[in-house]
Amino acid sequence: MLISLTTDFGEQDGYVGVMKGVMAGIAPGATFVDLTHVLPPQDIRSAAYVLWTALPYFPPESVHLVVVDPGVGTSRRPIAARTACGTLVGPDNGVFSYLWTIAPPTAIVELANPRYRRTDVCATFHGRDIFSPAAAYLARGVPLEEFGPPVTDPVTLSLPALEVEGDVLRGEVLYVDHFGNVITSIGRLLWEGEQLHLRPAFGSAPAVMLSAARCAVFAAGRALGAIRRTYGEVAPGEALALVGSEGLLELAVSHGHGGKALGLEIGAPVLVQMYQRVNG
Amino acid sequence: MLISLTTDFGEQDGYVGVMKGVMAGIAPGATFVDLTHVLPPQDIRSAAYVLWTALPYFPPESVHLVVVDPGVGTSRRPIAARTACGTLVGPDNGVFSYLWTIAPPTAIVELANPRYRRTDVCATFHGRDIFSPAAAYLARGVPLEEFGPPVTDPVTLSLPALEVEGDVLRGEVLYVDHFGNVITSIGRLLWEGEQLHLRPAFGSAPAVMLSAARCAVFAAGRALGAIRRTYGEVAPGEALALVGSEGLLELAVSHGHGGKALGLEIGAPVLVQMYQRVNG
Amino acid sequence: MLISLTTDFGEQDGYVGVMKGVMAGIAPGATFVDLTHVLPPQDIRSAAYVLWTALPYFPPESVHLVVVDPGVGTSRRPIAARTACGTLVGPDNGVFSYLWTIAPPTAIVELANPRYRRTDVCATFHGRDIFSPAAAYLARGVPLEEFGPPVTDPVTLSLPALEVEGDVLRGEVLYVDHFGNVITSIGRLLWEGEQLHLRPAFGSAPAVMLSAARCAVFAAGRALGAIRRTYGEVAPGEALALVGSEGLLELAVSHGHGGKALGLEIGAPVLVQMYQRVNG
Repeated sequence: MLISLTTDFGEQDGYVGVMKGVMAGIAPGATFVDLTHVLPPQDIRSAAYVLWTALPYFPPESVHLVVVDPGVGTSRRPIAARTACGTLVGPDNGVFSYLWTIAPPTAIVELANPRYRRTDVCATFHGRDIFSPAAAYLARGVPLEEFGPPVTDPVTLSLPALEVEGDVLRGEVLYVDHFGNVITSIGRLLWEGEQLHLRPAFGSAPAVMLSAARCAVFAAGRALGAIRRTYGEVAPGEALALVGSEGLLELAVSHGHGGKALGLEIGAPVLVQMYQRVNG
Repeated sequence: MLISLTTDFGEQDGYVGVMKGVMAGIAPGATFVDLTHVLPPQDIRSAAYVLWTALPYFPPESVHLVVVDPGVGTSRRPIAARTACGTLVGPDNGVFSYLWTIAPPTAIVELANPRYRRTDVCATFHGRDIFSPAAAYLARGVPLEEFGPPVTDPVTLSLPALEVEGDVLRGEVLYVDHFGNVITSIGRLLWEGEQLHLRPAFGSAPAVMLSAARCAVFAAGRALGAIRRTYGEVAPGEALALVGSEGLLELAVSHGHGGKALGLEIGAPVLVQMYQRVNG
Repeated sequence: MLISLTTDFGEQDGYVGVMKGVMAGIAPGATFVDLTHVLPPQDIRSAAYVLWTALPYFPPESVHLVVVDPGVGTSRRPIAARTACGTLVGPDNGVFSYLWTIAPPTAIVELANPRYRRTDVCATFHGRDIFSPAAAYLARGVPLEEFGPPVTDPVTLSLPALEVEGDVLRGEVLYVDHFGNVITSIGRLLWEGEQLHLRPAFGSAPAVMLSAARCAVFAAGRALGAIRRTYGEVAPGEALALVGSEGLLELAVSHGHGGKALGLEIGAPVLVQMYQRVNG
C-alpha cells in the first residue's frame, strides 16, 4: 500500500504529519511518499503540472492524495478518481486535469459517504477529515463506488498553450523548478538521431519533426540558440535550451538559475523558429 | 510500529536521517512520520503547540520522538512519558506541557539506563545517542519502566492565556502557521447551529455560548468583524476571524498571509466582544 | 530493505517522489529515509561531508542513493560501491571520497547493464532512470557484480586540510549547518577527562593530546577562547568553540547563528594554539 501526498501545506506546522497519523490509524503499514508540500500556496496549476510529471512513475495500484484546495469549506466537491496512474483523491478544482490527458479517469465519485470520513468534519481542514480517511480506506481496498455518487462533470483547467504556425512553434512557460530550469509547454520532444520528434503533450497541434541544430529558441526577448542535448555543451553561466526530463523544452543557465537569470515567469511566451523543418 | 519525529534540526544537514538510521538498526520495519523539522530553533512553545494539535490524530500505540532541546548537554533530564496519545520521548523542558492538558502522563521515567543508549553519548547530539535509541526500543516493546527511575516533577510551561470578563473574551496569539493563519488561545469553539460553544482548551475560564454573528473580534488595533465559517465568506485580501481546524479562533486574510498583513506575533492580545451572550 | 536518499533536488518539484515511485515499483515494501534534499545545488563537497557524518549510523545492509550530479549527461560514470557502511549508488564524481576514508570500497562497478535501467534514459534525470532502479534492484538483493564492469579508478576529492605545526593546529571550515554551527576539519577530538585526544579524521597529521582549557581557538581574526564542553558554558550571544557531534571542532554562537555572526564560510582557515601540549 503506497500513498503519495501532494499539498501546499508547507513543512513547518505538522499538518502533513497529522494526515499521515490519521491514515496510519486506518491503514497500518501503509508506505507514505511525499511528492511535495511546498507548492506555491493555492496554486492549482503548479500542482497539476507536478502531478502530470510524477504520477506515471508510481506503481499503478498507488493512491495519490492531493490537497491544494483554495475552495476548502465552499461547495466544491471532494472527489476520488480511478486512473491507469493510480487512484486520485482530492478537491474537484481541476488539479488532476493535466494528468487526465495521459491517464483519463475511468470512474470518479464524490466523497460523500460519512462512513469514510472523520465524524467531526472541520470546515478548514478537509485534508485531515475527508481526504486522508478516503485515501487510507482506498489503500485498504474499499471499492471506489462505496464512497459516494458518480461525478460526471469534474472541473477541468484549460490546457497549456502549444501551437504550430508555419515554421514557428509557440508555447508558454509552465513551471520554474528548484534548479531554476524554466519548463515550457513545447513537447513532448523525443530524440531521433539529430532530430526531434514533437508529439504535442497538450493542445491539439500536429506532430512535427525538427532538426535540433537548425532551429532557434526565443524567450524574454533573447535568442537562446539551438536545442542542446546536455548542460555540458555550454560554458558555466551561459543560457541554453534543451529537452528536459519530462520531454518538454526547458530553458536553463548552466550552473545557474535560469528563471532568475532570464527573467521568465509562468505564462511567458516561448518560441521556436525552425530553419529546417524536417517533416510535417 | 509508528515513530513520529518533531525537531528544530532543519532539513539540510542529515541529522534527522541519522536518527532514522539509528532507529532502523534497532527497530527494523518501523514506519517514520515526520511531524516537522523546521520549528523555530529552540522554540519550546511552538513545539508544544504543534504536538498539542497533532498527536491526538495518531494511533495511540505510536512513539513520538521530540528533540527541541536548547538545554542539550546541561543537566536537564531526558525523559519518556506514557499517555493516551502514545509514548513521548524527549527532553524534560516543558515541551509536552500543552499535550498533557488533554493526555496526562500516566508514567514518566528518566532515560538513564545505559543499555538503551548509544555507548558514546555526545554532549551535543542527544537526539542521536539517547532519544532515538529510546524511541526505537520503546517501539520494539521494551517496557517504559526499564529505561530508568520515575520522574514525578517534570518541567511544565505556563499555559496560554484565556479569560472571560463579562462580555469580553481575552486570549493571545499562540502560533502563526505556514499559510499565515494567526492561531489564538481562544477555543475550543464548537459550532452549534449559528452559535459557538466555547469550552476553554487552556486555562480555567468557564464554558461560554456565543453568537458567531453577534460578536466582534479585535486584534492589533483592528476590528475583524464577526466570526465566519469559511474563507469564502470574504473577498480576497480581506481579513476575517474564523474557527480553525483545531477549534481555536484564527485570524486570517483571504488569499493572503494574515500574520504579516495584520502585524501579529506570538503573545499579542486578542479580544472578542460578545454583543449577545447566549448562555453562561 | 532501507534505502536512504541524498540529493540537491530541493523539495518543491516532486523529483524525489518520482524516484521513490520508481523504486517502490521495483522493491515494494522498501523503507525510504531522506538524508537531505536541500544541499547547496551541485555542491559535491557538502554532499561528501554529510554522507561522511551520517552513513556510519545506518544499518550496514542499507542502500544509499546519492544524486548530486553536476556532470549529468556528460561521460561521467554512474557507479555503485560496496562498503562497510552499506551499498552506495551515485555518480562517479568524488561524492563518496570522504566516506571512503572510514569505509573503503571493497568493490565498485559501473552501472552499465541496461537490464537494471529504465528503458528510456533521459540525459538530464539519471536519478530517475539509472540510479533509482539500481538502488531498488540492489535493495532487492541483485548482486553488485550484475550491474556492470568493475571500476578501479574512481574519482576522488582532495581531503580537508589538517596540519600540526609545533603547538599550532591548522584546519579549515568544512560546513556550516542549519543551526549556524561552523564545522571544521580539526578532529576527531575525543574527551579524556579534561584533555582532548586528536586522532586526525582527514589528512596524515599525527595524533595529539591537548588540554581543552589551555588552548585558544582563532578564526576570522577573532579569538574564541578555549574549547568548551557545552553551549551552556557561555552566555547567550557569546561565541565559543566546542567539540561537535561528529567529533570535529565546531565554532558556534550560543542561541545564535555562528556562521553569520562570525562571518565564516567553507574553506576559511581555523587555528588552535596549544599553550600546554600534553602529549606527542
